[in-house]
Amino acid sequence: MSLDLLMEAIERTQNPTVAGLDPKLDFVPEYIKEKAFNKYGETLKGAAKAILEYNKGLIDALHEIVPAVKPQAAYYEMYGTAGMKTLYKTQEYARSRGMYVITDGKRNDIGTTMEAYAAAHLGKIKVGKEEYTPFMGDALTVNGYLGSDGINPLLKVCKENDKGIFVLVKTSNPSSGELQDLKIGDVTVYEHMGNMCEKWGQELMGKYGYSGVGAVVGATYPEQIAELREKLPHTFFLIPGYGAQGASAKDIAAAFDKNGLGGIVNSSRGIMCAYKKEGCDERDYAGAAFREAMRMRDEIMGFVGEIKLS
Amino acid sequence: MSLDLLMEAIERTQNPTVAGLDPKLDFVPEYIKEKAFNKYGETLKGAAKAILEYNKGLIDALHEIVPAVKPQAAYYEMYGTAGMKTLYKTQEYARSRGMYVITDGKRNDIGTTMEAYAAAHLGKIKVGKEEYTPFMGDALTVNGYLGSDGINPLLKVCKENDKGIFVLVKTSNPSSGELQDLKIGDVTVYEHMGNMCEKWGQELMGKYGYSGVGAVVGATYPEQIAELREKLPHTFFLIPGYGAQGASAKDIAAAFDKNGLGGIVNSSRGIMCAYKKEGCDERDYAGAAFREAMRMRDEIMGFVGEIKLS
Repeated sequence: MSLDLLMEAIERTQNPTVAGLDPKLDFVPEYIKEKAFNKYGETLKGAAKAILEYNKGLIDALHEIVPAVKPQAAYYEMYGTAGMKTLYKTQEYARSRGMYVITDGKRNDIGTTMEAYAAAHLGKIKVGKEEYTPFMGDALTVNGYLGSDGINPLLKVCKENDKGIFVLVKTSNPSSGELQDLKIGDVTVYEHMGNMCEKWGQELMGKYGYSGVGAVVGATYPEQIAELREKLPHTFFLIPGYGAQGASAKDIAAAFDKNGLGGIVNSSRGIMCAYKKEGCDERDYAGAAFREAMRMRDEIMGFVGEIKLS
Repeated sequence: MSLDLLMEAIERTQNPTVAGLDPKLDFVPEYIKEKAFNKYGETLKGAAKAILEYNKGLIDALHEIVPAVKPQAAYYEMYGTAGMKTLYKTQEYARSRGMYVITDGKRNDIGTTMEAYAAAHLGKIKVGKEEYTPFMGDALTVNGYLGSDGINPLLKVCKENDKGIFVLVKTSNPSSGELQDLKIGDVTVYEHMGNMCEKWGQELMGKYGYSGVGAVVGATYPEQIAELREKLPHTFFLIPGYGAQGASAKDIAAAFDKNGLGGIVNSSRGIMCAYKKEGCDERDYAGAAFREAMRMRDEIMGFVGEIKLS
């Protein structure tokens, strides 16, 4: 019913980072693509199979030092049904290797429809007398533009299945301020959304001071991170924008409390394409991902200090 | 590059309504479920196959009198990969029968990721030398919380492929006001979002006075429909909330201009479950859907008058 499982994985690995799995086909080493295309043709299925093998290699390399993966649904949907199968199999494989899975879907809708999304991504589905798990996330990113009745169905499913959500609060992209920075009376739109997260989280409080309703807060906005950490004491942050989007470890230091908890920092391209930046043999792509993940951990832990579950 | 194709379909059928395909398994007649479960078991695949047959029956019954369908992605995602295949096949079938397809996905993300969603739902994907269409929408609903760089990739794909989008402005659910009704200076959040739609739409202007950037405006808020029609003269409305959510034809009359254009009204449960309300044999579910669609059309056309493309 909370994000406690995530925090426990962060404490175990002493690493508050998450590897984003946003697998553009351009990121996948040629030898993996060739193998898949030889077997399945230059098809959506071929692309999806190549991505799955690539992801598995990354998960194998990272699972002992990185607590979580964040597959971005868009990069799977773009390969159609075959891509969605790879999303499922990636989630399943990451969980089998002990990783926490944050599905980055930014889903949102009215109440009855949100029940369907909640069941799809965090819950179970009954078909006749049988029960199934359509997708295998531990947490889901969501968009709160529709207010409480778009969030309540998720809270129910989170309670029943020990899952969590992250609501978009202050996103990492350049134009996020066009709506999010505007003032409603004395507070910004993003602060108002943050306050709603605190409220929604009250019924999902966990053991370590944070609720099951986290917030997405971009590393590219360090002042807002500091401001929101102070104002949202029970809201855990998912922090994109590190690395490829330009933010550094110093920018996100304010997200963490005295126990080293409070946030998890995402890197996608930085880890996935480390082999390109390093210039190593593409067959060592997973090794390069491991080395970049270690570097990132060390850099961030330099600001965080020791992580203890209080 | 616009919503002109939709408006032409509305004019051809003299019917500004869209049939929402939100196929909960409970909605599907028993005889269809039995057949699918006998063949595929009580599995996600069995459920997805039953839904596909149900949808095809509805499309067969409706395609000559209703211009568009709106499959709601959540109800397909909830049946996993098999469900996504049914989404694709439903879209494909509706288009083969001449219907316009609005994929209700409310997708949103930062720029680079939004390119992936745009390609997935409105564009094409290259794999090696081959090109594929992952999903078959003519338009997609999206959430503008992230601002322009989450929308711009869609505008590009809409231009290239003659597609459109609908941005959430004032949603139909009871709690939509928690954020959307708050005031930023003199304007509400929903009006601010509406103004962004007008701006985004400038580069996608169509032949009939409306752009390719539409707005979702709930039928449950008639005053806001009237207000927004006046303030957003180039923005076509997708109007959910009629019927099952409580709004009537009178509530949405203000959405339409003197030519009878300006909006399209969705009914999902009302049409899909017409056979339950009518109490007819479940094998006549498509006939009941047809009768309800005719009734809805006549009721709404009573307020709209003749539809002419100016």
